[in-house]
Amino acid sequence: MRENQRHTSRVSVLGLGRMGAPIARTLLAQGHHVTVWNRTPERAEPLVRDGARVAGTVAEAVSDGELVLVTLLDHEAARDTLARAGERLRDRVVVNLTTSTPQQARELAGQVAGHGAQYLDGAMLGLPETVGTTEAFFLYSGDAEAFARHHAVLELLAPAHHLGTDPGLAEFEDLALLGGGYATLAGFVHSAALLASVGRRASEFVPLLSRWLTGLLAFLPELAREIDAGAYADGASTVAMNRTAVAGLVEVSRAQGVPPGPHAALLDLLTRREAEGHGGDSFASVVEPLRRPGPPVG
Amino acid sequence: MRENQRHTSRVSVLGLGRMGAPIARTLLAQGHHVTVWNRTPERAEPLVRDGARVAGTVAEAVSDGELVLVTLLDHEAARDTLARAGERLRDRVVVNLTTSTPQQARELAGQVAGHGAQYLDGAMLGLPETVGTTEAFFLYSGDAEAFARHHAVLELLAPAHHLGTDPGLAEFEDLALLGGGYATLAGFVHSAALLASVGRRASEFVPLLSRWLTGLLAFLPELAREIDAGAYADGASTVAMNRTAVAGLVEVSRAQGVPPGPHAALLDLLTRREAEGHGGDSFASVVEPLRRPGPPVG
Ligand SMILES: NC(=O)c1ccc[n+]([C@@H]2O[C@H](COP(=O)([O-])OP(=O)(O)OC[C@H]3O[C@@H](n4cnc5c(N)ncnc54)[C@H](OP(=O)(O)O)[C@@H]3O)[C@@H](O)[C@H]2O)c1
Ligand SMILES: NC(=O)c1ccc[n+]([C@@H]2O[C@H](COP(=O)([O-])OP(=O)(O)OC[C@H]3O[C@@H](n4cnc5c(N)ncnc54)[C@H](OP(=O)(O)O)[C@@H]3O)[C@@H](O)[C@H]2O)c1
Repeated sequence: MRENQRHTSRVSVLGLGRMGAPIARTLLAQGHHVTVWNRTPERAEPLVRDGARVAGTVAEAVSDGELVLVTLLDHEAARDTLARAGERLRDRVVVNLTTSTPQQARELAGQVAGHGAQYLDGAMLGLPETVGTTEAFFLYSGDAEAFARHHAVLELLAPAHHLGTDPGLAEFEDLALLGGGYATLAGFVHSAALLASVGRRASEFVPLLSRWLTGLLAFLPELAREIDAGAYADGASTVAMNRTAVAGLVEVSRAQGVPPGPHAALLDLLTRREAEGHGGDSFASVVEPLRRPGPPVG
Repeated sequence: MRENQRHTSRVSVLGLGRMGAPIARTLLAQGHHVTVWNRTPERAEPLVRDGARVAGTVAEAVSDGELVLVTLLDHEAARDTLARAGERLRDRVVVNLTTSTPQQARELAGQVAGHGAQYLDGAMLGLPETVGTTEAFFLYSGDAEAFARHHAVLELLAPAHHLGTDPGLAEFEDLALLGGGYATLAGFVHSAALLASVGRRASEFVPLLSRWLTGLLAFLPELAREIDAGAYADGASTVAMNRTAVAGLVEVSRAQGVPPGPHAALLDLLTRREAEGHGGDSFASVVEPLRRPGPPVG
């Protein structure tokens, strides 16, 4: 066997929307056998010119591919479409890249396993134009053996991270990333409103904020270490100091007629920690009230 | 006059704490005449070895410097200390780098102007060890002529940005930056709690989050343009789409026993915008309810 001999995979792609189409195109460009299926068959035409085979039915598409990538609108579309493949799923690896909740991912894993297929759930972090580049990254969870077997092909789509065998993990991580992003955007919007109240434009603020936030990212590893260890003893930036700062932020917001928005929840957390005698702990300890009421891991 | 001849300024520094001491040292290293004053005189000793003159009283320190930098603990300390300078303030430029509220900055500007001095308020973004480097940046607002005159000296401390003549502006911008930072940290902490509920460590999450947030910063200029224009028509990422995503985030958080924290306020905003018929507007339009109730600019 020649060292650079590469395995050609048979991959089926169900759903040729904004993400599915560039995914199929990337695999074709790398010489894999790609079968495509789309509810509206016309959308498959450009891919046929790139070398794809078009399947007339879901069952036919699933028969063709050892690896079945699902890039449909939502959980219901993915669930109902896979249900139409029935027993053809046997011995297939299904990679569901459709956005779902963690619970939906687990349910679909069960449905698919019931038909003798291995299941991986995926979350795609990136825009359609970044498919096939290292600008995007895709998260996976579920069957570890299936991931290892198809790792090389999945890497063609975007850097591929397998997070663990619980099929819900990729969707949890996706939500956690989205949440981090939304919190940053909510903070930006709040600050823009605060500055608008004194006649300053958001556009003038962006370069300084970008700089400030980029600097802040360097502190996340230390916060993460404290959170993972549950130890908050030697913080230079304490709960009490930060409570004072956030209280000032909320107070000035209110004085300007801007609802305190995302900062009210943080002020509550900091105030609560201080009242419970943790004013001298480092900032990261505000995570504690958030994880205290957690139910057993599902 | 030789082209590279440089003006040597007489600068007084009131307060030699963590920020004041490196500020005085930076100016001395650049050959300026520096007079220092500190409530606890012993803290001035290391600076004397670097060439500073020590003033025994605030009035004496203020007499010495055409430029008076104030780096004290808080507004009360700055106000009371400057009050002790009395008429010696005449024709001085006072740059108050002490953290204050915008309103306190405006009050102190009035107090200082009453004694015939020009006033600049400053906000220092950076840690003590970054003073004198381009890692820090300092924001100023107030007397524009005074800023222009002393710009070269102020640039020695950190890149210097003058935001406008309202003395409160630097403190507003500081709060807006702090707010952006706190929102990001609150989002991180919430996500860490969500991931902890499925056994994932915050440390594993940080590299992906940093990457995700860094990518997100590239979208802020467009959001800012929409906010400044108040025009949200051609968004690819609509209020309705984002409401669905944030609702999912809040729902999964609740299911895991993690309080929705900063996301609840954003969901309220998105829901409200959609209910008011703005579901098709771009995301940035959530700023509108925040600035609607604003009082006249103070
Ligand atoms: N676009 C992005 O930037 C992006 C990024 C990351 C993740 N995602 C996620 O990726 C998934 C696909 O997104 P997309 O942007 O590619 O979506 P899209 O462009 O809207 O395409 C949706 C696809 O789903 C099909 N579909 C919808 N309802 C169906 C049903 N009931 N039965 C069968 N097929 C159905 C559509 O078929 P027709 O052609 O017949 O309508 C189309 O192929 C979504 O879960 C999305 O959240 C998207
Ligand atoms: N440290 C930072 O990373 C940082 C960053 C940005 C902005 N800031 C802001 O910069 C300012 C100074 O911070 P810092 O870290 O340098 O503070 P610091 O190390 O605590 O020093 C405080 C200074 O204020 C003096 N002081 C306190 N109360 C006084 C009073 N009633 N009358 C006269 N002098 C008084 C202290 O004098 P004694 O020596 O006699 O106690 C000392 O010189 C603060 O407003 C802070 O918020 C700090």
